[in-house]
Amino acid sequence: MEKNYLYFHDFFEKSEEHIHGIEKILVDLRTPYQHLQLVQSPIFGKMLIIDGDIQSTSKDEYIYHESLVHPAMLLSEKPENVIILGGGEGATLREVLKHKSIVKALMIDIDKDAIQIAKKYLQEWHQGALESPKAKVLNLNARKFMETQVSTRSVDVIISDLTEPFEDGPSYKLFTKEFFEIINDRLKDRGVFALQASILRITTFKMHLSIRNTLKKIFPVVRSYYTYIPSFDTTWGFIIASKKYDPLNLSANQINSLISERIEGQLKFYDGDTHIQMLSLPKDIKLILSEDSEIITDQNPVFLPRK
Amino acid sequence: MEKNYLYFHDFFEKSEEHIHGIEKILVDLRTPYQHLQLVQSPIFGKMLIIDGDIQSTSKDEYIYHESLVHPAMLLSEKPENVIILGGGEGATLREVLKHKSIVKALMIDIDKDAIQIAKKYLQEWHQGALESPKAKVLNLNARKFMETQVSTRSVDVIISDLTEPFEDGPSYKLFTKEFFEIINDRLKDRGVFALQASILRITTFKMHLSIRNTLKKIFPVVRSYYTYIPSFDTTWGFIIASKKYDPLNLSANQINSLISERIEGQLKFYDGDTHIQMLSLPKDIKLILSEDSEIITDQNPVFLPRK
Amino acid sequence: MEKNYLYFHDFFEKSEEHIHGIEKILVDLRTPYQHLQLVQSPIFGKMLIIDGDIQSTSKDEYIYHESLVHPAMLLSEKPENVIILGGGEGATLREVLKHKSIVKALMIDIDKDAIQIAKKYLQEWHQGALESPKAKVLNLNARKFMETQVSTRSVDVIISDLTEPFEDGPSYKLFTKEFFEIINDRLKDRGVFALQASILRITTFKMHLSIRNTLKKIFPVVRSYYTYIPSFDTTWGFIIASKKYDPLNLSANQINSLISERIEGQLKFYDGDTHIQMLSLPKDIKLILSEDSEIITDQNPVFLPRK
Amino acid sequence: MEKNYLYFHDFFEKSEEHIHGIEKILVDLRTPYQHLQLVQSPIFGKMLIIDGDIQSTSKDEYIYHESLVHPAMLLSEKPENVIILGGGEGATLREVLKHKSIVKALMIDIDKDAIQIAKKYLQEWHQGALESPKAKVLNLNARKFMETQVSTRSVDVIISDLTEPFEDGPSYKLFTKEFFEIINDRLKDRGVFALQASILRITTFKMHLSIRNTLKKIFPVVRSYYTYIPSFDTTWGFIIASKKYDPLNLSANQINSLISERIEGQLKFYDGDTHIQMLSLPKDIKLILSEDSEIITDQNPVFLPRK
Repeated sequence: MEKNYLYFHDFFEKSEEHIHGIEKILVDLRTPYQHLQLVQSPIFGKMLIIDGDIQSTSKDEYIYHESLVHPAMLLSEKPENVIILGGGEGATLREVLKHKSIVKALMIDIDKDAIQIAKKYLQEWHQGALESPKAKVLNLNARKFMETQVSTRSVDVIISDLTEPFEDGPSYKLFTKEFFEIINDRLKDRGVFALQASILRITTFKMHLSIRNTLKKIFPVVRSYYTYIPSFDTTWGFIIASKKYDPLNLSANQINSLISERIEGQLKFYDGDTHIQMLSLPKDIKLILSEDSEIITDQNPVFLPRK
Repeated sequence: MEKNYLYFHDFFEKSEEHIHGIEKILVDLRTPYQHLQLVQSPIFGKMLIIDGDIQSTSKDEYIYHESLVHPAMLLSEKPENVIILGGGEGATLREVLKHKSIVKALMIDIDKDAIQIAKKYLQEWHQGALESPKAKVLNLNARKFMETQVSTRSVDVIISDLTEPFEDGPSYKLFTKEFFEIINDRLKDRGVFALQASILRITTFKMHLSIRNTLKKIFPVVRSYYTYIPSFDTTWGFIIASKKYDPLNLSANQINSLISERIEGQLKFYDGDTHIQMLSLPKDIKLILSEDSEIITDQNPVFLPRK
Repeated sequence: MEKNYLYFHDFFEKSEEHIHGIEKILVDLRTPYQHLQLVQSPIFGKMLIIDGDIQSTSKDEYIYHESLVHPAMLLSEKPENVIILGGGEGATLREVLKHKSIVKALMIDIDKDAIQIAKKYLQEWHQGALESPKAKVLNLNARKFMETQVSTRSVDVIISDLTEPFEDGPSYKLFTKEFFEIINDRLKDRGVFALQASILRITTFKMHLSIRNTLKKIFPVVRSYYTYIPSFDTTWGFIIASKKYDPLNLSANQINSLISERIEGQLKFYDGDTHIQMLSLPKDIKLILSEDSEIITDQNPVFLPRK
Repeated sequence: MEKNYLYFHDFFEKSEEHIHGIEKILVDLRTPYQHLQLVQSPIFGKMLIIDGDIQSTSKDEYIYHESLVHPAMLLSEKPENVIILGGGEGATLREVLKHKSIVKALMIDIDKDAIQIAKKYLQEWHQGALESPKAKVLNLNARKFMETQVSTRSVDVIISDLTEPFEDGPSYKLFTKEFFEIINDRLKDRGVFALQASILRITTFKMHLSIRNTLKKIFPVVRSYYTYIPSFDTTWGFIIASKKYDPLNLSANQINSLISERIEGQLKFYDGDTHIQMLSLPKDIKLILSEDSEIITDQNPVFLPRK
């Protein structure tokens, strides 16, 4: 093992700890909402950590962001108006803006300081997207904004790129049935909702399952998919919820055609095979996802325990 | 994090270390070939460690073993004679024996002590397979055995379930072009060869690539596939090499039919969707796998560095 | 750093963790009272761990045991009857028995299994002392035994070699004012009481201070002393409490004379210089020890927090 | 254990690792000579790390610096001219300047950047000493400076406060017999030389022993002493070498008198008892220090291995 002196300890499950050698600390900032750390890893390059959780790294952020954005965007017929909840790094916005049909992409991230940090240090992530004329970034409470500032049936795609729902964190009110009902109302009839939906592996899946089962109370189509994120050391869950379109109906060839028609610029991870891979769930995962779970409501939120 | 006092440290990549809390040490034995440790993890149950590498755990060994065995077995038309190289836990043998067509399954593992440990402590793994009348376990040098004791075109499926090719380990002579030529010779024309083929993720893939490119010098069909193994904290690579059959030609429905026709007993991980998932490689992995690499030969073996 | 796969993690202070490579696990046993682990360290040899705390190691146990036993024994005029509270390894008893004047050494350790483990695995520690004709080992509750089975003014030296007073551990009722009153009553007028008295360093000293200040309510002479124990990575506190004799009155030369007169066999750590060193406290430690603290009573015991 | 996300790993002996939670990184700088890191620990406050070794912390630096400086200064009859080798933090200088007799204190530290860092961030250490009119700080090669710029028999006290002699570090040529001969020559007849002299504990002492035995080839009086430094988790060795005065001849009372006569300002660690404690070596340490060892010469330097 290469010698380092400073390490980031990623507390993982109840008795695992993943240690990452750190060459340099670039940012260490406590904003009013969260603790942001940007460090340099010899393996993953820049590594963004919020409240002790790796959010994304310059080496593999494309896997997470392409997985979150493109299945939903291609499922939507012609996405013009898109809203991103969270997404502070600007990379979700970057991927959204690759779609030629986009007229306006609105990003609502409560943490102004996080956006400042992104602009200054995360150039590889946003690649200028935060300043795009098609984009607008608002530092507001996303729950309130969706409730009061967005009209019924006005949005094509909503993408939830939030931090995990910790009791002491800023995100948990954006994972409840009541909020998902607002999302449903604001989406057009052919609208699509995509979420990062917590860790999904056989040893840890309860939060994903609760989000999934809560969405199923509202949306007719709810599809879990997942992919392996190297810097997370685990597969990660996503969900697409929609009023009618089903991502399972798209073949690899169809995805490849849609990509060449509708996307400008290169993708590094997502293509037809990737789409099929992410949505083809193994037998054990299908079994897990068929289980009952708590439904998340404003009155009974489900929190992820701090590890 | 739950409090433990003893930990297994999994040295991972050049500056990562994964720490697993350990409730109990069941076996700690240095055989003439390797250092075997069997420990109890609160997350993964029994965890078998050889020379510092997690081999498999009672919680998730089915993922590894079903992934290694069934794609090759179902690709073979009617596997009767099967040879397993390595496979000390007995779980590869267990999966092979689920195929009704099997007449004889030969397992060649050099380490007699490992087999004794498996018989005594790894009941969940082998489930009696090591004593099956259809099975035969030999503690011999697999290279020599394949060279001298197996006739040309006599085997349906060969499964290589070996530890990684470390310079000081027992396995590296079983990953060379010369040995793969012997494998090719001993397989029937419709024969299939499947291997565990080292870690495969975007940050670590050179050993997989060398094994793959070496096999391509000999076999007309060489397919990499991979799956996430939770206790490894990474996706793991496998390869199918065959004289004519291609696993990409099998659809999810075909796999599901073959499973119900040909397999006795339940599978927990592998089904049609799983087959599709494992063989559908994302764009970045396809790019990696198209690269050149060293070819592994007896004269120029490729070793995995001790971390 | 040498490569090991298993590690003991010593949780130390509130944000420190000391990791010890482990070559072998010799014993891992949960008795009715505590969790015993005996492991092999490349640096310290056999390492005895109780409930996650290193108790002593074959490399440096002589430092702890000689420090605990000899200052008190030499301060006593002619120790014939000695009682040891705890002391499961048998090494405290071993040191006591080196004093020629000893007629009877009684050791009261509640944990029968710990004694069995010591007899079987800790030969380097007890060196046969547990079987000495002058010794008697009783597996009883020491509090009750001292209350009911020992007469007033009958004991020359009492040595408390207990595990730390954790709320869930077996020892905390042996660190209270009420118990120290019993000790005082059972000691002869020229009697001496010595205790292992928890960690003593500038960052951690509250437990030592409470034990010290509690003893001062009862005994006219109370002297803290301390020494560095390598395997603990810290200095460790001891206390001598007596009715009249003061260890500060003994010079290095006097100690050396007493050792040659009264002790049979070799000492490895303790001599005149060591006596002076252990009792000469630096300015910062003297300041700490002059502070007020909680007094430990049966009604208001003071517990060490589990780290 | 308190939760932190960033840790400093102190590699300790061949299979030990001490992990310190880090709240903040204040400085991370590679100078032409060394890698400086200043971090905030919840236990030790600011912690200065050079090339992976803890140098001193705001919580306990006084122990190290008072131990290094005052025994030598009080042993000197009337120290007027003092030279400090190394000592970048400015705390050794601070302690030297407490002696009223000082006319001129010269500090030779090769690393200009380290001094700049000290001035800016280590106010608690130097407390303005680096700017004192009695002090002069030169960023030069100390070996060369002592050889060419200092006259024979001109210095009262020389204090060596260098980093450890690593093969790739800046200090190893200041630990050789040839250099000690220069020191001897430059000291007045009543001169005293004091050194930080590497770790001294029963498991690690070879470097200390070599420095000691090398000094003994030159100086008639050579005394090892040691004290426990909490942030180092170990006792640390120092040596006084002189032409005639012996620190063993000073009693606790004499030290206390000298302190009140000759020192301005408060000491926190060193007093008469501390002097006695540091110089009273236990039996096992005396045994170790009586061993033979390599002599360090320019031709055959002794290096500390990187851990």
